[in-house]
Amino acid sequence: MHPIYTFDKSMELIRRAMNVIPAGIYGHLGPAEGCHIPIDAYPKYCDRAKGSYFWDVDGNRFIDYMCAYGPNILGYNDPDVDEAAARQREKGDCTTAPSPVMIDFADLMVDTVKSADWAFFAKNGNDVTSLAVMTARAHTRRKKIVFFKGYYHGVSPWTQKIDYAGIMPEDVMHNIYVDWNDADALREVFENNRGQIAAVIGQPYMHGNFADNILPAQAFWQTVRKLCDENGTILIVDDVRAGFRLDLAGSDHYFGFEADLICFCKAIANGYNVSALCGKDFLKTTVSGLSYTGSYWMSAVPFAAGIACIEKMKRIDSPRILIEKGEKLKTGLIETATKHGLDIHVSGVPSLFYLRLADDPSLMLHQRWISECVRRGVYFTNHHNHFINAALSDEDIRETIEIADEAFTAIGK
Amino acid sequence: MHPIYTFDKSMELIRRAMNVIPAGIYGHLGPAEGCHIPIDAYPKYCDRAKGSYFWDVDGNRFIDYMCAYGPNILGYNDPDVDEAAARQREKGDCTTAPSPVMIDFADLMVDTVKSADWAFFAKNGNDVTSLAVMTARAHTRRKKIVFFKGYYHGVSPWTQKIDYAGIMPEDVMHNIYVDWNDADALREVFENNRGQIAAVIGQPYMHGNFADNILPAQAFWQTVRKLCDENGTILIVDDVRAGFRLDLAGSDHYFGFEADLICFCKAIANGYNVSALCGKDFLKTTVSGLSYTGSYWMSAVPFAAGIACIEKMKRIDSPRILIEKGEKLKTGLIETATKHGLDIHVSGVPSLFYLRLADDPSLMLHQRWISECVRRGVYFTNHHNHFINAALSDEDIRETIEIADEAFTAIGK
Repeated sequence: MHPIYTFDKSMELIRRAMNVIPAGIYGHLGPAEGCHIPIDAYPKYCDRAKGSYFWDVDGNRFIDYMCAYGPNILGYNDPDVDEAAARQREKGDCTTAPSPVMIDFADLMVDTVKSADWAFFAKNGNDVTSLAVMTARAHTRRKKIVFFKGYYHGVSPWTQKIDYAGIMPEDVMHNIYVDWNDADALREVFENNRGQIAAVIGQPYMHGNFADNILPAQAFWQTVRKLCDENGTILIVDDVRAGFRLDLAGSDHYFGFEADLICFCKAIANGYNVSALCGKDFLKTTVSGLSYTGSYWMSAVPFAAGIACIEKMKRIDSPRILIEKGEKLKTGLIETATKHGLDIHVSGVPSLFYLRLADDPSLMLHQRWISECVRRGVYFTNHHNHFINAALSDEDIRETIEIADEAFTAIGK
Repeated sequence: MHPIYTFDKSMELIRRAMNVIPAGIYGHLGPAEGCHIPIDAYPKYCDRAKGSYFWDVDGNRFIDYMCAYGPNILGYNDPDVDEAAARQREKGDCTTAPSPVMIDFADLMVDTVKSADWAFFAKNGNDVTSLAVMTARAHTRRKKIVFFKGYYHGVSPWTQKIDYAGIMPEDVMHNIYVDWNDADALREVFENNRGQIAAVIGQPYMHGNFADNILPAQAFWQTVRKLCDENGTILIVDDVRAGFRLDLAGSDHYFGFEADLICFCKAIANGYNVSALCGKDFLKTTVSGLSYTGSYWMSAVPFAAGIACIEKMKRIDSPRILIEKGEKLKTGLIETATKHGLDIHVSGVPSLFYLRLADDPSLMLHQRWISECVRRGVYFTNHHNHFINAALSDEDIRETIEIADEAFTAIGK
């Protein structure tokens, strides 16, 4: 039996944080938007991390299935990535002229990503999804953008919801929302907005929150591609979350089509701060003509880290091994749930799987199970997809299944 | 006499970069938007940097007065900042839960910055200027934003110009532009838009491009503050560029007023990737309620670097020494120009001085002089303010004046 964790120091620290930080922890790592449901089952602050684990400030160790919400793909503090970054840091990071390592990284992205003829680097996923939309608008001289319901493309006003705080109706007035996998609805939107749609933007598959993740229907992306071609519309793939966990050549390549613009962040440099917009040659001049830059965007250390990360991902064929690890975990979780008479749905590609206990419409049983797992050292979330990293061992998976089993027993009582 | 530099490897590299990166180098470090006028006088790529210098890929050494456009404030690769960052990196950087170092950094910002009751960290200056505007709109439930002509607040659509590529009229339809230092015009704008102005956003003084920088007129900021108070409007200071080079308590403090929201980036962590929005207590709940986050925003290494940077800036009283160094340089440049019968205008606060040769309306003589400086190892720009860092020595300043002298001789021929 695994011991039950407590979070006294975490709770003490978050009380201190509330004084000087909005919400104590804001955003996706915070109690409000993050995975901390129920709030008392989750650690709030991390002391250290290594490989597939992090240790919280109370000394509890977690097998981490969130991977910093994606960036940790090779394992925390991967020695190859850290060494490449440290070597570059000795030479220089954020300097008045960029380092040639920027060109090396762009070359590698173009060699690696099928639909990439060029790469533009920034800091956040949001920087590059926003750049993609601006590029589409500049190139087409049109305004409307089609989104798939359930999307997440960052935090800029253009991609938020009309009823969110700080957002004006004008920010989202040219947005059109279509159901995921509904080719007929998309066709109708194109017919009703002829010559007006600048871009369709989509994640490679629907990995929304509080719902099973949904892969693209047969030929869906090919239909989207065809409709974009017929209408002179730019097809943007937001691969910020799924990128490099499905296919190193891009998640569009995994699903058998080519984007015009594709956005990367998260797994691109194993946690070093960099994002990239890649795209087709015909859009390069348009991108060059935009006013778009930032203080740290050409820092050399994240480029060196990115090169080491992508080269290692190629060497170990990371999508294949991450999907295999995810499959192994999925099989184990389903077997264990079945033993307890429970039906667990594991959706999405296994390298970024989503969990849900079936026959539980209020999600309360699911929440209880998840929290029993977290309290025993398996960091799951109850409403967001998870992430697999390459340092996750068979022994970690075995221990995860064991804890899942104990957690099922706990909620059965 | 100093040798004249050549840039063969830089030119070779930029030709290679053009294949895989839009514009070869985009944004403020690139030939198009950057300081590279004339283009053949400037190095394009940096090999390494240390203290007050960087060395380009051709092996040329520059005394660097751009400081990566601001981030380098203590000298490149400052040992204290780098050591604190390396120590934190061993524990963890971008992890599933944030490190408590985030709270320590927020505490330090609140202790240091006069108008800060809290701190919200992100990655870019643009992230926090955008957050400030969203916060003002959410808090006031108003839409209009007042800007001072000549402003730069980042690259998001709301702060770009209506005729820029990728920008829609809707993006900027609630923007009002007022002349800098024109209190009467601002008063009139408030009268004509009663109950509609969410925020006034301004840099602490006008440090625009291609023009002498202009300090606030007597009592100007106090009038702005009063008008904001009378109208329930949020006063946002964009201290991204000037922050920590005028006053560690904030540039609003330097000019004798208090902002409601103040934006920092650049000099906050000596080049490590972090930015901060700080503000008054009455806006904390509003900020907490916005949907605003990013993959790397709570990475611990830049927080540790920021703490070490701010503590060192306090220890050495960096604004005072940077202003003194700038004064010394200014005096030397004016004396040298006078010797050549030329009148050089040095505007702005000396720690971020702007240079212009007078009686040169086409700016061509100025450009020639600047380029002769750069070719001899002094990295000046001809249309942007400069930055002083704490590693700049008296010997560097002496050598700069010597090179300036040789450059004046060269343009006189």
